[in-house]
Amino acid sequence: MKPIRDQFPILSVPENGKRLIYLDNAATSFKPLSVLKAVDDYYRMDNANPHRGVYTLGVRSTDIHENARQTAARFINAGPEEIIFTQNATEALNLIAYSYGMEFLKKGDEILISVAEHHSNLVPWQRVAKLTGSKLVYLYPGPDGRITEEELDQKINPRTRLIAIAHVSNVLGTEAPVKSIVERARLYDAAVVLDCAQSVSHMPVDVQDLGVDFAAFSGHKMYAPMGIGVLYGKKELLEKMPPFLSGGDMIASVHEQTASYAEVPRRFEAGTRNVGGEAGLAAAMEYINSIGWETIRNHEHALMDQMLKGLNALPYVTVYGSTDSRDRFGVISFNVDGVHPHDTATILDSEGIAVRAGHHCAQPLMEYLGIGSCVRASIAIYNTEEDISVFLNSLKQVRRWMGYGA
Amino acid sequence: MKPIRDQFPILSVPENGKRLIYLDNAATSFKPLSVLKAVDDYYRMDNANPHRGVYTLGVRSTDIHENARQTAARFINAGPEEIIFTQNATEALNLIAYSYGMEFLKKGDEILISVAEHHSNLVPWQRVAKLTGSKLVYLYPGPDGRITEEELDQKINPRTRLIAIAHVSNVLGTEAPVKSIVERARLYDAAVVLDCAQSVSHMPVDVQDLGVDFAAFSGHKMYAPMGIGVLYGKKELLEKMPPFLSGGDMIASVHEQTASYAEVPRRFEAGTRNVGGEAGLAAAMEYINSIGWETIRNHEHALMDQMLKGLNALPYVTVYGSTDSRDRFGVISFNVDGVHPHDTATILDSEGIAVRAGHHCAQPLMEYLGIGSCVRASIAIYNTEEDISVFLNSLKQVRRWMGYGA
Repeated sequence: MKPIRDQFPILSVPENGKRLIYLDNAATSFKPLSVLKAVDDYYRMDNANPHRGVYTLGVRSTDIHENARQTAARFINAGPEEIIFTQNATEALNLIAYSYGMEFLKKGDEILISVAEHHSNLVPWQRVAKLTGSKLVYLYPGPDGRITEEELDQKINPRTRLIAIAHVSNVLGTEAPVKSIVERARLYDAAVVLDCAQSVSHMPVDVQDLGVDFAAFSGHKMYAPMGIGVLYGKKELLEKMPPFLSGGDMIASVHEQTASYAEVPRRFEAGTRNVGGEAGLAAAMEYINSIGWETIRNHEHALMDQMLKGLNALPYVTVYGSTDSRDRFGVISFNVDGVHPHDTATILDSEGIAVRAGHHCAQPLMEYLGIGSCVRASIAIYNTEEDISVFLNSLKQVRRWMGYGA
Repeated sequence: MKPIRDQFPILSVPENGKRLIYLDNAATSFKPLSVLKAVDDYYRMDNANPHRGVYTLGVRSTDIHENARQTAARFINAGPEEIIFTQNATEALNLIAYSYGMEFLKKGDEILISVAEHHSNLVPWQRVAKLTGSKLVYLYPGPDGRITEEELDQKINPRTRLIAIAHVSNVLGTEAPVKSIVERARLYDAAVVLDCAQSVSHMPVDVQDLGVDFAAFSGHKMYAPMGIGVLYGKKELLEKMPPFLSGGDMIASVHEQTASYAEVPRRFEAGTRNVGGEAGLAAAMEYINSIGWETIRNHEHALMDQMLKGLNALPYVTVYGSTDSRDRFGVISFNVDGVHPHDTATILDSEGIAVRAGHHCAQPLMEYLGIGSCVRASIAIYNTEEDISVFLNSLKQVRRWMGYGA
């Protein structure tokens, strides 16, 4: 994958004097030249407030803004009026919680989430539950990281009004059984919220095929700049929802004591939009499209398989979740016996290898797994077979460096 | 001001075949090379998630993130723990409305704002008033755009719990009597929220000297990228406030049914931060510091004086607010008799001059002024005497082009 690696300038900067091996892509990914250029070009040529100016720069900025919306809509097979730009997945999920959750959930209702949720798809629902009197109920995955059909049957019932779940777990790398969830949710007319932060750079996300009501993701984990994300919502639901952030550009008219709000999606886009970020996001989606999903999946699956086989072969390494690489998207979390995850990460860092150690914003999952924290290695399209080999070889040295012998 | 103009690459791109004269700086400003470089460099060299990684890139990103906070704190004379990064002023104001407003305002309380507020400092308070049963009360400026001491005496009373006001009006360009407001607010322990979106690029903002409780501004109007803004809050108030957006990085610990939250400011910074934007914001503040407030104020005052005198000399032009340029910061709004503001802006655009026409997200002020919309010309540090001359000369042609003769 040489040509891909060359598209990412940061990969040519040495890390601690070594060739950088970046395996924290589930936290944030690097940006290719085409994305950096799209952002820079926007500020060098088109920089203006969209929607508001009748002058040429303003018209161009409006076009870039609305074209980015079209690109995002095509990317997940939605309508452009179903795409709301947010600063990241966290804001998108909070928007659903504040606007849909606070408006439509009532005492006695149940919100169903998985114990493997990232805090961004968990803490907002705790708050909605507390403020509305609804109840937060958990799905628990099996040892392979998967949520079974039986677990769904047991937890989804007529009181279930909203199900919020990660498409791919940021710790276990497992794909949620989205279609099974949606099928059951439809029986009781419950809304389904899909957190696609960890899936959208690794597999095609087709919101119509999946049938979810909402989806959220960040640009910065999919080769786009920080500060831009997307909320997808079915138009008929968005139209029923009250505004979340209010201010300029989201209103139809304002009087001293009353205001009426713009049509969706603008009702949910208050204040000056991050058009530079949107230009970068559109470029990132075009970059992914230019490589193609088949190439991405084949390449990433080969790396996951190499990594998982390598880790499974080390008797002192515990891998969390499935040991089958077909169940893994982008992420493998593990611990080295007798070595604190932070020590593992620090030793790897001295070799130029960036992995993450901690609770990965998934403390309830850590509790469920009976651990305080773990190490996570996560890949992107620019990682190589050599990256994984070096990572595995360095990992073999970790216990020796910590005094355990060979 | 040649060297300053050369720092902004977009100014060398012709607009409609003409030299670009950009007078919509109150909507968004252009970015100097140092800001573009800071953003680009961040993604080319340091790109990582702050706070979360123990590896070197993560440590560098954390340093850039926290250094930007220090820079922002120094810029407005606040403590770093009183600086919260948001996506823009709109989000900052909504944060205050949702967190402080919804928590501390009660039925019978009064929220006091000015009729000249931008919708972003008005619609959130309408919503708080509606949801809490508090009352939204208005301050009205005189014909010179100023709010008198008598008006303050009449409207500020023991029921006043929160006063939210623009430091500088985005339509009238008038500075609010902040110290008089704060003095009266202190009598009744009311909170003062200052919307600095239109002041922060034109004058030094010293939150301690002004004595306000909260201040909000956007980066994109002060030479920084879109998608980054600042909320200032007094530490003792922030510490009393519940979270607004919830998710990763803003928690202390999370269990299935409960969560405890991080200390301020992190409690209010959920999800991955826009570190690229923060790097750009810090560079913009350093750029302003490098020019110096005296140079900026002298230059901008000369341009405002030239523009206001030129407009006052045209009998068919009505200027809104003060006709004294000493009362004007950055912005002049006006109409040409018999010509719709959008026509004025469109004709000017054909000459390469970008001004804005509309209600400027201040519809209650338009109602108060008895107009539907107006034209607004607003300046930045890179505008020149020649820009203003060309603008005034072109404006003289507008009535002729609309068929009114010379």
